[in-house]
Amino acid sequence: MDTSEDLLAETLGSIRPLDVEAMHAARARQSQLTKPPGSLGVLEEVSVTLSGIQRRCPPRVPEELVVAVFAADHGVVASGVTPWPQAVTTGMVENFRAGGAAVNVLAAEAGGDVVVVDIGVASDLKEDEVVWVRKIRPGTADLSRGPAMSRTEAHDAVAVGIQVARDLVARGYDALATGDMGIGNTTASACLISFLTGRPADEITGRGTGIDDDMLARKTRIVAEAAARIPGDADAIDVLAEVGGLEHAGLVGLILGGAAARVPVVLDGVIAGAAALVAQRMAPDAIGYCFAGHRSVEPGHRAALDQLGLRPLVDLDLRLGEGSGAALAFPLIRSAAAVLRHMATFESAGIDA
Amino acid sequence: MDTSEDLLAETLGSIRPLDVEAMHAARARQSQLTKPPGSLGVLEEVSVTLSGIQRRCPPRVPEELVVAVFAADHGVVASGVTPWPQAVTTGMVENFRAGGAAVNVLAAEAGGDVVVVDIGVASDLKEDEVVWVRKIRPGTADLSRGPAMSRTEAHDAVAVGIQVARDLVARGYDALATGDMGIGNTTASACLISFLTGRPADEITGRGTGIDDDMLARKTRIVAEAAARIPGDADAIDVLAEVGGLEHAGLVGLILGGAAARVPVVLDGVIAGAAALVAQRMAPDAIGYCFAGHRSVEPGHRAALDQLGLRPLVDLDLRLGEGSGAALAFPLIRSAAAVLRHMATFESAGIDA
Repeated sequence: MDTSEDLLAETLGSIRPLDVEAMHAARARQSQLTKPPGSLGVLEEVSVTLSGIQRRCPPRVPEELVVAVFAADHGVVASGVTPWPQAVTTGMVENFRAGGAAVNVLAAEAGGDVVVVDIGVASDLKEDEVVWVRKIRPGTADLSRGPAMSRTEAHDAVAVGIQVARDLVARGYDALATGDMGIGNTTASACLISFLTGRPADEITGRGTGIDDDMLARKTRIVAEAAARIPGDADAIDVLAEVGGLEHAGLVGLILGGAAARVPVVLDGVIAGAAALVAQRMAPDAIGYCFAGHRSVEPGHRAALDQLGLRPLVDLDLRLGEGSGAALAFPLIRSAAAVLRHMATFESAGIDA
Repeated sequence: MDTSEDLLAETLGSIRPLDVEAMHAARARQSQLTKPPGSLGVLEEVSVTLSGIQRRCPPRVPEELVVAVFAADHGVVASGVTPWPQAVTTGMVENFRAGGAAVNVLAAEAGGDVVVVDIGVASDLKEDEVVWVRKIRPGTADLSRGPAMSRTEAHDAVAVGIQVARDLVARGYDALATGDMGIGNTTASACLISFLTGRPADEITGRGTGIDDDMLARKTRIVAEAAARIPGDADAIDVLAEVGGLEHAGLVGLILGGAAARVPVVLDGVIAGAAALVAQRMAPDAIGYCFAGHRSVEPGHRAALDQLGLRPLVDLDLRLGEGSGAALAFPLIRSAAAVLRHMATFESAGIDA
């Protein structure tokens, strides 16, 4: 076994189910707080999940969020699936570095930071505190013509994500959010989701950041053909290698690494949803550590969330990616924890209800 | 005219439509930001509305939120519409004062404050910085047996709300959120919503904070009979007086006062929705200043939001009231403003897309 395979095996082996006792205690405590039982709806469930993740009730209120934006290019753009030039991936990474993108603003509003992981951008990028260069290869091969990457590359990219999760948790972050940048990455996402949910390409493929009917028809055909190429007995690494993006593989690692480190992982949109389906295939318990930050308008995202069993916290027709929806959702998660931690009980408030 | 009527007339006269030029500039600026057009969905519309409210583009990012919780009791509880004893209203006001309620925790998480306005609690409450005693009367009369209050009382309660909005804006708050506390107030809300939307009581009446089938049937019958008693040509004050709560009247004043002062008003759940329908009757332009913080599971809320033309920002099955859903939504509104104010444009970022 090479090092990447060792790291993955070790990580998968250390992912535990959520702590049932802490969750039971959280439900009991919710019923004692000064409000009608259940009246805080989904917030109550979020607080219970956080207790299960942290293995304590009440949970600590997560305060240190980091959005890890995995950036990579996609060979499939050569087949005409997007009107955006590939150079926009690099341009946007520089925009993240400079702090001018939506995810920078939204993470800052949530009290969080942004880190960009160049896991496969086609151009050479400068390393600094914001942009971490961990390039596996300068973009995938065109998935419409053959495998997007080798199994070894897929393994290595997952290992990068695991290591990024470890490094971020070691720096003191107590909540991870997924981000992504890569022109063409909704095409790879649709392939992953179509194969992993068994739903047909025309139900799953969407307009991404905005394409016309002709381009959508071409994109859908490419997704259908690529997903059909994957053998039925393919393992999760095979699937990633055949049709995934390098950022998908990195996000799989981030999710697994976050779950192993017992920190919440806030998923962004359809790219994260596709990666989470791959992670679910490897370690179903990892999804317990995930919150669906939002629901994208991209049709595949709904199918992914259904299969993941996650309810989105924000549902405001976003379709940007970058981690924008995850950053936006973080205050809701923090608030859910704060309620369970700080609210009075009927007994402590002296209310006889 | 008495003073309350003067204050209302003056306030109604100073409510202006949103500034179309600032909204146009906001839409133009959104299209230049480093993201695909429209990709931030509802957040983009929120930023446009904020520009229209503040009459400037980009808008200032609202930073100082206050949740104004109007508290009052309801004579209709004597007719058996809720299992909660009336004394819980007082108990919860003391809980707000001590900082132990959900709205305290959620407002603090949103960086905001809580003020409680005793506009009609049945018991005597102590005035301090948190609890403002502006009592019109110690609870309404039983609306199932006759008018809940007089026209003069309704006017006076609206005036209290207007004055509270003025005082809060004068203290430097740049965003108001509606809160409410009053055992029995979903019954009064259902009466208001049924009459003002023309929808039958059995579509509008819900279980509030939790009632059984028998109690729901009684509550629905009371709502149907009370709403049917209101003359078709009743003005908004007549409607409030016949079936409203004192906190509804106060919230009508808060909404009108906020709109007149050109600050955003974040509505909480079904009680705020009922009050906003009354405000809409008095001044349709006032609703332009309102954001629907969330959608409650209470069925009347959906009908109210439809008629108000507002889309909820949070939709997480809350049914608590207090202003909890409005406080929870505030970070989304702040984030929407921050995006428009702080994101880079394609030109400033040097991206050729």
